[in-house]
Amino acid sequence: MADNQNFFTLIRKDRGSQARRGSINLGACQAPTPLFMPVGTQATVKGMTPEELERIGFTIILANTYHLYLRPGLEVIQKLGGLHKFMGWNRGILTDSGGFQVFSLRERSSISEEGVVFRSHIDGSKHTFTAENVVAMQVIFGSDIIMPLDECVPSDSSWDYVKESLGRTHRWAERSIRAFSRECERNEEGKHHLFGIVQGGVYDDLRRESAEFIGSQPFSGCAIGGLSVGESKEAMHHVLEEISPLLPENKPRYLMGVGGPDDLFMCVERGVDIFDCVLPTRMGRTGTILTSQGKMVIKNARYKFDSLPPDETCQCYTCSNFTRSYLRHLFMAEEMLGPWLATYHNLYFLNSLVEAMRTAIDEGRFVQYREEFVSRYNQGIDA
Amino acid sequence: MADNQNFFTLIRKDRGSQARRGSINLGACQAPTPLFMPVGTQATVKGMTPEELERIGFTIILANTYHLYLRPGLEVIQKLGGLHKFMGWNRGILTDSGGFQVFSLRERSSISEEGVVFRSHIDGSKHTFTAENVVAMQVIFGSDIIMPLDECVPSDSSWDYVKESLGRTHRWAERSIRAFSRECERNEEGKHHLFGIVQGGVYDDLRRESAEFIGSQPFSGCAIGGLSVGESKEAMHHVLEEISPLLPENKPRYLMGVGGPDDLFMCVERGVDIFDCVLPTRMGRTGTILTSQGKMVIKNARYKFDSLPPDETCQCYTCSNFTRSYLRHLFMAEEMLGPWLATYHNLYFLNSLVEAMRTAIDEGRFVQYREEFVSRYNQGIDA
Repeated sequence: MADNQNFFTLIRKDRGSQARRGSINLGACQAPTPLFMPVGTQATVKGMTPEELERIGFTIILANTYHLYLRPGLEVIQKLGGLHKFMGWNRGILTDSGGFQVFSLRERSSISEEGVVFRSHIDGSKHTFTAENVVAMQVIFGSDIIMPLDECVPSDSSWDYVKESLGRTHRWAERSIRAFSRECERNEEGKHHLFGIVQGGVYDDLRRESAEFIGSQPFSGCAIGGLSVGESKEAMHHVLEEISPLLPENKPRYLMGVGGPDDLFMCVERGVDIFDCVLPTRMGRTGTILTSQGKMVIKNARYKFDSLPPDETCQCYTCSNFTRSYLRHLFMAEEMLGPWLATYHNLYFLNSLVEAMRTAIDEGRFVQYREEFVSRYNQGIDA
Repeated sequence: MADNQNFFTLIRKDRGSQARRGSINLGACQAPTPLFMPVGTQATVKGMTPEELERIGFTIILANTYHLYLRPGLEVIQKLGGLHKFMGWNRGILTDSGGFQVFSLRERSSISEEGVVFRSHIDGSKHTFTAENVVAMQVIFGSDIIMPLDECVPSDSSWDYVKESLGRTHRWAERSIRAFSRECERNEEGKHHLFGIVQGGVYDDLRRESAEFIGSQPFSGCAIGGLSVGESKEAMHHVLEEISPLLPENKPRYLMGVGGPDDLFMCVERGVDIFDCVLPTRMGRTGTILTSQGKMVIKNARYKFDSLPPDETCQCYTCSNFTRSYLRHLFMAEEMLGPWLATYHNLYFLNSLVEAMRTAIDEGRFVQYREEFVSRYNQGIDA
């Protein structure tokens, strides 16, 4: 197993909340937490070069095992020297196990104790993911952080179903640990880190059971899965409040699929360290711009003659060089520079936000900063 | 009128051909010739930021009056401080008159001595372009180089039609000069430069008539229109050979719409100084990569495991950081980074090519360089 002792350092705990400042040691790079990971499903964060991601300041990106296994395929990535080299990114890569994608294609997949059999969304071909082979694939990718196979249940699943599913997910977790140990013996010591994933739907008892189980295993970090999948925000916050105290303090906590600015604050406040979300890139492509005053829909006619930058408080390349009027024109004219400039800004905005959170925790004023930010953000510039 | 004396400097004439080295003085920037202008029809070179265009080394880009007049409209560009400020580009801008676009919508336009009435391709609304108002619009844009209204006739037009059209185009040219003088009196002296456009279809006598007429007028440069519109390459070369000797030596010559690497050589050899073309950006978006060994179709299966850069001899960001295998993956997965990386490379490739031509002319070995390049290029890596 990787050397967990050096992997995560808890630097400071906030007094007024459960917010934490920490640092993840990835060897080639230190990743300060709280941190946000942009999503690079297919070995590319949509539209961004690795140089631009570095310039913004990202330290870890997320890529997806399911997608990369199907296209370009393991053999291509292996022959091209692993995922970092393939995509030209020298900092951290966390790969999803692919479980989320497989289970979101329910009619195309069937689950058993062994794993999950599914059909490709590209060509309908049949494939099997097991606890063991998804770890092996991610080792081939050269991922810094590896996620085990788990079942992500829909938010409306019954207690009985979630209970049964959770038992299987936990058995898969144990198998993943054994597979990971075997893989690491054959590979570089300390290069890869395996996280566990807490499941349990919206049921407090199952979430607690899962948090205690995952927390007790020799994982490098604890992910929280099965949230942000349709349940209410209150339900999400409640689950976090239930499980945060049960998770080991000396391991980073990763909440999968969350990335709205207000959500980040609420979840950091409840002890989460790591996030990923398609929100900044997806919104950027469709012309929704994150600003300190809320979401801006740049195609609105009110921006036709607007000579202000998208966000007056932002220092990014987009806001330093272009007006709302120009961005609106690009989106109206369906010019690809529009999605690019908006995506770049949104990513910069979220990275700056977690940076500011880290500073606020360092300076003991996280809750105050959260209140200032959220009250301004909730004015809603285009709400 | 602008001070033509300082606008263009002819630095050197090649001994073995009609190739010329020169420099265009745009006040804010010197543009060495031969030069290639990337096309930014809608106030954006598709997918590229101004920073990237500068990094590649472009000094002038082309934008389009017809498109910008319709969207975002004159009022927006005027209120936002002109085209340079609107799009964040500090170097040169040449704007097309829009004539080419209007005439390419033949069923939507009607021509008269006054000008051309047409319907918008966006909303069907009716508009009129005259010799005078297209100059006025380009002055509002703040264009460094302004093109007059002309009629670009199809390559299969009869001699009689071209003769009639040419007379009108020449009368429009004279009206443009008067309109330009009036506009410039109201505006900054020396900021704008008006080019004339030689027409005449594929008819030697009409081309010669046009070259002599346009060459005799007080334009800052001479454009050659109505080529690369369906006629054979031989016909294009023949026209250039006919008119080059008739054009004033002390004014730059701009061949509109030409940009294939081999075409650039053939036309520089025949005395052309300036080019524009959508070829590098359009090909980039669809996965065709210009290389020193010919065009590469990056989706070809043969590149699946190919760890070489797209062009081994190229120093651009794309070729310095990514493999053919990765680019192929991006195009197969329909990821926007693919078109971006290919477009960036293609633009860099063409700019490097005209740079190398300039050096070759300086060093008196243009024809030799042309032969070396073309024989390698015509091997055709994917032909």
